[in-house]
Amino acid sequence: MTSETIEDWRRQIDEIDRKLLELFNERSRCAMQIGRLKRALGLPVYQPEREREILENAERLNQGPLDDTAIRRLFERVLDEARSLERLAVAHDGPAAEAPASAPTGTRKTR
Amino acid sequence: MTSETIEDWRRQIDEIDRKLLELFNERSRCAMQIGRLKRALGLPVYQPEREREILENAERLNQGPLDDTAIRRLFERVLDEARSLERLAVAHDGPAAEAPASAPTGTRKTR
Repeated sequence: MTSETIEDWRRQIDEIDRKLLELFNERSRCAMQIGRLKRALGLPVYQPEREREILENAERLNQGPLDDTAIRRLFERVLDEARSLERLAVAHDGPAAEAPASAPTGTRKTR
Repeated sequence: MTSETIEDWRRQIDEIDRKLLELFNERSRCAMQIGRLKRALGLPVYQPEREREILENAERLNQGPLDDTAIRRLFERVLDEARSLERLAVAHDGPAAEAPASAPTGTRKTR
């Protein structure tokens, strides 16, 4: 009976993971659009003050149970992937000073 | 005008990040419940076959634009945090074979 309950929580987690997957990809589509606009405007992909803002917002709004350092680690990963995709968006639109065509996969972190 | 559009995409990202934050924490509450149940049943916190299932589900359902390796990196981070919290849940309930009281913070990865 208790092991059924573990299954119940796991089904909830599977449902959450489907939403996370959708949001990760939705967020990436936004990041790619921003990458294209930055390129059109000649702006750098990496804007540290915006990344700082994102991390600060996440920590400020965090109500747990994850602590702020865990939230920061999660959003740092999200930001890493967004940055890679923005670079890819820039590179796909043609050569740009900041992101040569070979850079996006090369700059991706492997764990 | 174009820089306003960057702002529009950023507002969308902020909205997505609020949902991500909520889901990360909701997922963690589920993981803590599972941690407590595992302890009651004498099961180990780390169950590699379940983690593999989670990663496989994410990759199977992924429709991009993030590629499967990016999705895997994101969910590996999510799993790392879940494992830490499960251990914490186990430790808070009292001493357990797998997770001494000092383990949870000590095993947390710093980046």
